[in-house]
Amino acid sequence: MMRSFLPLSGMDVPRFAGLPSFMRLPFLGLEDWAGVEIGIIGVPWDGGTTNRPGARHGPRQLRDASTMIRVLNQATGVRPFHTANCADLGDVPVNPADLMDSLARIKAFYDDVKARGIVPMSAGGDHLVTLPILRGLASEGAPLGLIHYDAHTDFYDSYFGGFAYTHGTPFRRAVEEGLLDPKRIVQIGIRGTAYDGEDVEFARSIGVRIFMIEEVMDKGADAVMAEARAIVGDQPTYVSFDIDGIDPSQAPGTGTPEIGGLLTHMAQRMVRQLDGLNLVGADLVEVSPPFDPSGGTAWVGVNIMFELLCVLSGAVAARRA
Amino acid sequence: MMRSFLPLSGMDVPRFAGLPSFMRLPFLGLEDWAGVEIGIIGVPWDGGTTNRPGARHGPRQLRDASTMIRVLNQATGVRPFHTANCADLGDVPVNPADLMDSLARIKAFYDDVKARGIVPMSAGGDHLVTLPILRGLASEGAPLGLIHYDAHTDFYDSYFGGFAYTHGTPFRRAVEEGLLDPKRIVQIGIRGTAYDGEDVEFARSIGVRIFMIEEVMDKGADAVMAEARAIVGDQPTYVSFDIDGIDPSQAPGTGTPEIGGLLTHMAQRMVRQLDGLNLVGADLVEVSPPFDPSGGTAWVGVNIMFELLCVLSGAVAARRA
Amino acid sequence: MMRSFLPLSGMDVPRFAGLPSFMRLPFLGLEDWAGVEIGIIGVPWDGGTTNRPGARHGPRQLRDASTMIRVLNQATGVRPFHTANCADLGDVPVNPADLMDSLARIKAFYDDVKARGIVPMSAGGDHLVTLPILRGLASEGAPLGLIHYDAHTDFYDSYFGGFAYTHGTPFRRAVEEGLLDPKRIVQIGIRGTAYDGEDVEFARSIGVRIFMIEEVMDKGADAVMAEARAIVGDQPTYVSFDIDGIDPSQAPGTGTPEIGGLLTHMAQRMVRQLDGLNLVGADLVEVSPPFDPSGGTAWVGVNIMFELLCVLSGAVAARRA
Amino acid sequence: MMRSFLPLSGMDVPRFAGLPSFMRLPFLGLEDWAGVEIGIIGVPWDGGTTNRPGARHGPRQLRDASTMIRVLNQATGVRPFHTANCADLGDVPVNPADLMDSLARIKAFYDDVKARGIVPMSAGGDHLVTLPILRGLASEGAPLGLIHYDAHTDFYDSYFGGFAYTHGTPFRRAVEEGLLDPKRIVQIGIRGTAYDGEDVEFARSIGVRIFMIEEVMDKGADAVMAEARAIVGDQPTYVSFDIDGIDPSQAPGTGTPEIGGLLTHMAQRMVRQLDGLNLVGADLVEVSPPFDPSGGTAWVGVNIMFELLCVLSGAVAARRA
Amino acid sequence: MMRSFLPLSGMDVPRFAGLPSFMRLPFLGLEDWAGVEIGIIGVPWDGGTTNRPGARHGPRQLRDASTMIRVLNQATGVRPFHTANCADLGDVPVNPADLMDSLARIKAFYDDVKARGIVPMSAGGDHLVTLPILRGLASEGAPLGLIHYDAHTDFYDSYFGGFAYTHGTPFRRAVEEGLLDPKRIVQIGIRGTAYDGEDVEFARSIGVRIFMIEEVMDKGADAVMAEARAIVGDQPTYVSFDIDGIDPSQAPGTGTPEIGGLLTHMAQRMVRQLDGLNLVGADLVEVSPPFDPSGGTAWVGVNIMFELLCVLSGAVAARRA
Amino acid sequence: MMRSFLPLSGMDVPRFAGLPSFMRLPFLGLEDWAGVEIGIIGVPWDGGTTNRPGARHGPRQLRDASTMIRVLNQATGVRPFHTANCADLGDVPVNPADLMDSLARIKAFYDDVKARGIVPMSAGGDHLVTLPILRGLASEGAPLGLIHYDAHTDFYDSYFGGFAYTHGTPFRRAVEEGLLDPKRIVQIGIRGTAYDGEDVEFARSIGVRIFMIEEVMDKGADAVMAEARAIVGDQPTYVSFDIDGIDPSQAPGTGTPEIGGLLTHMAQRMVRQLDGLNLVGADLVEVSPPFDPSGGTAWVGVNIMFELLCVLSGAVAARRA
Repeated sequence: MMRSFLPLSGMDVPRFAGLPSFMRLPFLGLEDWAGVEIGIIGVPWDGGTTNRPGARHGPRQLRDASTMIRVLNQATGVRPFHTANCADLGDVPVNPADLMDSLARIKAFYDDVKARGIVPMSAGGDHLVTLPILRGLASEGAPLGLIHYDAHTDFYDSYFGGFAYTHGTPFRRAVEEGLLDPKRIVQIGIRGTAYDGEDVEFARSIGVRIFMIEEVMDKGADAVMAEARAIVGDQPTYVSFDIDGIDPSQAPGTGTPEIGGLLTHMAQRMVRQLDGLNLVGADLVEVSPPFDPSGGTAWVGVNIMFELLCVLSGAVAARRA
Repeated sequence: MMRSFLPLSGMDVPRFAGLPSFMRLPFLGLEDWAGVEIGIIGVPWDGGTTNRPGARHGPRQLRDASTMIRVLNQATGVRPFHTANCADLGDVPVNPADLMDSLARIKAFYDDVKARGIVPMSAGGDHLVTLPILRGLASEGAPLGLIHYDAHTDFYDSYFGGFAYTHGTPFRRAVEEGLLDPKRIVQIGIRGTAYDGEDVEFARSIGVRIFMIEEVMDKGADAVMAEARAIVGDQPTYVSFDIDGIDPSQAPGTGTPEIGGLLTHMAQRMVRQLDGLNLVGADLVEVSPPFDPSGGTAWVGVNIMFELLCVLSGAVAARRA
Repeated sequence: MMRSFLPLSGMDVPRFAGLPSFMRLPFLGLEDWAGVEIGIIGVPWDGGTTNRPGARHGPRQLRDASTMIRVLNQATGVRPFHTANCADLGDVPVNPADLMDSLARIKAFYDDVKARGIVPMSAGGDHLVTLPILRGLASEGAPLGLIHYDAHTDFYDSYFGGFAYTHGTPFRRAVEEGLLDPKRIVQIGIRGTAYDGEDVEFARSIGVRIFMIEEVMDKGADAVMAEARAIVGDQPTYVSFDIDGIDPSQAPGTGTPEIGGLLTHMAQRMVRQLDGLNLVGADLVEVSPPFDPSGGTAWVGVNIMFELLCVLSGAVAARRA
Repeated sequence: MMRSFLPLSGMDVPRFAGLPSFMRLPFLGLEDWAGVEIGIIGVPWDGGTTNRPGARHGPRQLRDASTMIRVLNQATGVRPFHTANCADLGDVPVNPADLMDSLARIKAFYDDVKARGIVPMSAGGDHLVTLPILRGLASEGAPLGLIHYDAHTDFYDSYFGGFAYTHGTPFRRAVEEGLLDPKRIVQIGIRGTAYDGEDVEFARSIGVRIFMIEEVMDKGADAVMAEARAIVGDQPTYVSFDIDGIDPSQAPGTGTPEIGGLLTHMAQRMVRQLDGLNLVGADLVEVSPPFDPSGGTAWVGVNIMFELLCVLSGAVAARRA
Repeated sequence: MMRSFLPLSGMDVPRFAGLPSFMRLPFLGLEDWAGVEIGIIGVPWDGGTTNRPGARHGPRQLRDASTMIRVLNQATGVRPFHTANCADLGDVPVNPADLMDSLARIKAFYDDVKARGIVPMSAGGDHLVTLPILRGLASEGAPLGLIHYDAHTDFYDSYFGGFAYTHGTPFRRAVEEGLLDPKRIVQIGIRGTAYDGEDVEFARSIGVRIFMIEEVMDKGADAVMAEARAIVGDQPTYVSFDIDGIDPSQAPGTGTPEIGGLLTHMAQRMVRQLDGLNLVGADLVEVSPPFDPSGGTAWVGVNIMFELLCVLSGAVAARRA
Repeated sequence: MMRSFLPLSGMDVPRFAGLPSFMRLPFLGLEDWAGVEIGIIGVPWDGGTTNRPGARHGPRQLRDASTMIRVLNQATGVRPFHTANCADLGDVPVNPADLMDSLARIKAFYDDVKARGIVPMSAGGDHLVTLPILRGLASEGAPLGLIHYDAHTDFYDSYFGGFAYTHGTPFRRAVEEGLLDPKRIVQIGIRGTAYDGEDVEFARSIGVRIFMIEEVMDKGADAVMAEARAIVGDQPTYVSFDIDGIDPSQAPGTGTPEIGGLLTHMAQRMVRQLDGLNLVGADLVEVSPPFDPSGGTAWVGVNIMFELLCVLSGAVAARRA
């Protein structure tokens, strides 16, 4: 392949110059996706948000912050952009005022992504976007596994008198629709106050493994991830990282913060231990710039995205080999 | 009437103490509305927002800021809380994830308000909320007049491929539905870049009087208001004030700011000249706290609300007499 | 009892709607306190602050943030609002310009609270407010125990040439006045630079157990709390939580931050271990909104208040049984 | 006189370097005041504030901002530091927790200033500080004239049930104490809502000339100042500038903002027309940094201070001649 | 020409989606400039800043804000993107740590721009970038005219003991180098304190027409622009707009704000009156995002850029005809 | 010695009053340095910054924050101002627009400091300032040891095509110039993405001991410091603390944050274990106020400076003895 998929270096052009594509990678329109192995995609939509909106602005701020990312992961030695061809595939053209239309638009986009064999690394948007992404990625009769970092299970049934689609319900729907195998779902970092606990009871009743934050703090990252890896096994697995899994002191810019969360060094350590799994995609959601005066949340978010890219690139290379 | 509708005074209890009801007035549940002449109502909803959301948080921040309002308008001598019985009627219970359901809930609330003969002073929310408010207030076959302060006409036809309900379309819909009489609509302060000008052409074609900001600056507040008063006459008239009518240096906390806008002293002067009109309700919309680091926008907003209350109280007293 | 003391649910009405009472509980005037077991009370006063003021604005911001609290503590299973009747009793009507008058007004309010058998969960205000609260709660000849989370001992003698009442002196005064039993006082998290160390020396000389932050970090939450529980025993005990006990990265909005503090998950763990003690009241003080651009401090504060409510509700239920 | 009273130039040492004394002038302890003609003095105290505190932090932020001031007034040609010997005399050592003690400390400081023949240019602090300043400056039986820019009259009688000393009462007290001649008091820019209007009625009844903002906007700066100059005449006159006289879009960092205020270019023009009056001192009060995220209020404040220095230096030179 | 130079519409794809090129125009690399008539160019460099840095971040924030610009100027009826082919040509690859190298890089970039007959609309960066832009654009022996909106003359000779290149000196250098004809230079909005006045004296001595802000306020926009148009005549003229020409309440995000400045509606009116002049380029400089908590300065900046594009597009069309 | 080197106490004068010298110590001009043992010095310069500037404003904000420091280190019992004579020696007079000139000016200042036997505690400024400081302090043929806390090695060779002096290169230069002994360099906290890893490889190849953050987290502060102490031994050693060594949640105000960093309590613990080493100076660099909305970074910075002062004062006392 002739063209380069390497980012522009900050040694050559200052990081504050130029258009902010994700990680300073090439920005490619649909007609130009040939050769791409991992596509970074924005889903600027927050129509499922029940309280504080703003995650629609996440992709742009994440792209901006991502221009400070360099190419080498010093902790693991991985160079993801050298390991797999990565590109910025732009944003899904959503409809901010129509929820059902937006879900359809997002699914259609990921149908395309899947059809071309591209592994998506998505940036939300609120957590409801994971539902149409999974609709695009999961094959009939082959539900995916899920490793899910979050403060909330997002396994609620409905809100406001029976409304089924909010950012608190995507995984309930995904299991109902056969997109996810509940016995291969692991949720890590759950905490905070709850409406009634029905979400947790339901999830556990169908086989979901929930690590409440207290268990994570007591056992440590390595033990948690060892169990998580065993649960999802070597079958196709998706990773969903809600930024509110991180403690709000490190990620204030999100709609539903819960105190007492994961610290970033622990989160990085856990994501690195996804290495070797059969990963088919990942997302980082719920970064909401209007609630972050300093912009630090997006910076945490892109660092998590970089760690996810590192393990995704390994999975791509392994399948390619 | 026995009970008091006067605000708690900052001379007695500090302004930062206590629950922040609008203007420190009594906060009344539906069962308790008897005797109320003007109801201040929050409509915490921004589902019609096409770009930067956050106006759903407007009513709460407006209430907080409103605790700094006192009882006497020094410029006009009006004491609105003494002139008419005012109370805080709470917020309409909207559904943040379902647009059509929310429009229905808002209309139903204002049906109640109208049925009890209460004049509503509403606080948005985005500008689409004015549509269901008008649906509640306007009587069959008796379209209302409108004096509308804004940077935008909100007369667009549709967005995103035919979507009819956004905060850019309420007045197009309201005219189509016979809620407003286009020949008695006055728009003041329109400016900024435009998609194509079709909104302005359409509005003018049906008789709407649009004062672009340049005309306002050239003619001055008094001339503009004299003409506006003549246009709406003595028939029932509604007032809608979009905070983005004000210059963004004075009201940055809004989703669609346009530079070169009305300064507050000019806006105050124009609102005071609504005195004597046959006003049946008013709203102040589009205050979006997440985009206002200092909170000053809400403070501007509640001062405009206070000026609107002063002229509304006069209209109530006049009709009572 | 017929009336409900349960919060309004965010599943029914969005969390950003409605007046922000504490935890969305009923807001009750003095005439309406019958049946209340735990009263949440604001004390919006910071006249004892020697450096950066603003804690007078704490109660309002805490109420606003508290609308994001739900009913179930997922870590412990406690549902405090179901365990005991809780209500928002409003703010003490302080005098911001007169220190001695304010101390008298606060004491009088808590005399009432105590007379009605209500357990107070207070929200400051600066730390001097704990002194008049204790004057109201403590009975003649029956000094209370105290578990006190803070960066500072607040055991100073005087400031500015002999001035006895500041937010650095309340516990010195409380011991002198016989409100607290020094041998049953435990202070946790003390750190930072000091004027001269006299406060610590004095406190230790009368039997106070001080856990400097280094000891807390070395021994861990469980060991600290085991010793603290043993010290206060089963006699009546008050809990005072100064938000500056928390690390300033998690609670920047306070007047006297000290780095190297408690992280929230550790604080939550320690407060949960107050369960089973004979608690007669608690406060959370020194949240100062003007120094918190993101509002996160109030969110930490209300989560601590929720944890305190959980253990207070247990104590109420135990005494009721 | 040998030593220099000129500021450090930004052409020589960058403006962000060095300790921020007022205008980069020499900072002089009491023992070193010889030769000073105009003393710039901080009064970091806000104990009279009835709502939002923070003006105690004003002097430090004003000093910081003042390092961007240069030596020449381009509009008038005045070079105040060349016209009179100016120096930074430091801050009055106030007591933040004791109001009456602080009033006494401030008066004592200004007794010293007056005794040495120094003209004070003070930076508050809340507006109550003007009272003890006037106690220091006014001579027995020789009440001063006053030109007062403000949104509020500060002529209230008392707060919170008879409390006489707040930032809303200084001029009532000053007239009662014979420090000011009410017939030579001019107030400019008054506006906003009022408690009951008693302050305005009282002030007018004793001869105070109040220019409400509407009159200022209608007549213009020149006409207002011509009348103001005629009223105070050539007798000794003090100038008090409350930053909330300026519109809150230009000066958000203050405790009691009122919309529709003076714009800075109008304020500059009015202050310049104080030239030639028999000025004996001036103050700039109510800058409250915690309420100003961008710091712009202090920058407005120091520019007003610079304009005041220009006219003060002219008065000093005239009396010297 | 086949390809489109029209912006992506917010009616089709939400304004917060996609990469933020200037005005949502095509972003073109050097190899792709054919057909471009007006090139929008970022110059992200602030190495000439003597006090508060940050203008290097201007182009990115301006691009982000520019996604809210639509295609029609409602005040003038101009549609600049239809009138001339506009594109985003990216950022000049500067060297943040080497001033002289950066000046050379910028000049080289504009040599290319001029060689291709493209009219540049540039976005700074600090004001020193105008010097190398002019070096690229001005032809030997044919100095340009200049209309310059600013709070400062930028006609200083040197700083810090003889240093010749800072953002306070570009026009002194440009005249010395024969790039500008001093008799055709007009400066509008000059104000604030000055070092010594030598800059103004020098500029006037060589024929520069300086409108101090007081003269602008007294005469009004139309009179000022009529004289300015007469001075530059029909010869080639450049326009340089320093955002600090605008009042800091409307444009706080800049390094050297001066109070009492132009209001935006006046600035818009003046820029519109550049219509019909023989314009060869324009820039908007000194937007410094780190000093603007709300981002409003960039929004003002891109609106000024849009007005400049409107008149530039007219000049392009006129020369094309 | 007669004069006092003790800070002004907050018990006597409130902390917000007075000029903000470092730690409220005497501020001494060059002519007045006699008797000083430790000089606190600002180096307000950021000309070596390759991405986000602003560290030039660090010294002023650090001084302001430092007024909240008291005299006793409660964790160690050290009273540094009593142990050694400390004073604020002001800022080095740098040239913001000329890099090489600034390096020369800084070196000259530290030549003076060294000549007078003063141990410098410096506050940056960006990290390039450490190079000219070391040029001033290191003696010919006697390279210093270094303990360096940072997220980055700052061992890069060059930027932007061969440019040798940026804040990413100081230690490469310092080793080349014989100022540091590479075998006695310890770097602690290195992390984040990297350009290519050449810096780490080079540093290790010449004997530098690098503790990546993962090793620090795994081994703990005590083990790391024990090894670090053994490496530098009892020979003269310098300490350089880049604030970005701290996690960005605790120190957001810096130009190049990297997530997953040191928490403050760990940093404090490590700095305290420098006690007993033969320390000849220290610095705290890269605090950049424009990127810190809450000011907390400077507060962390001055606390680290205080801990460094404690160990420096011990070294001074030891050498004095």
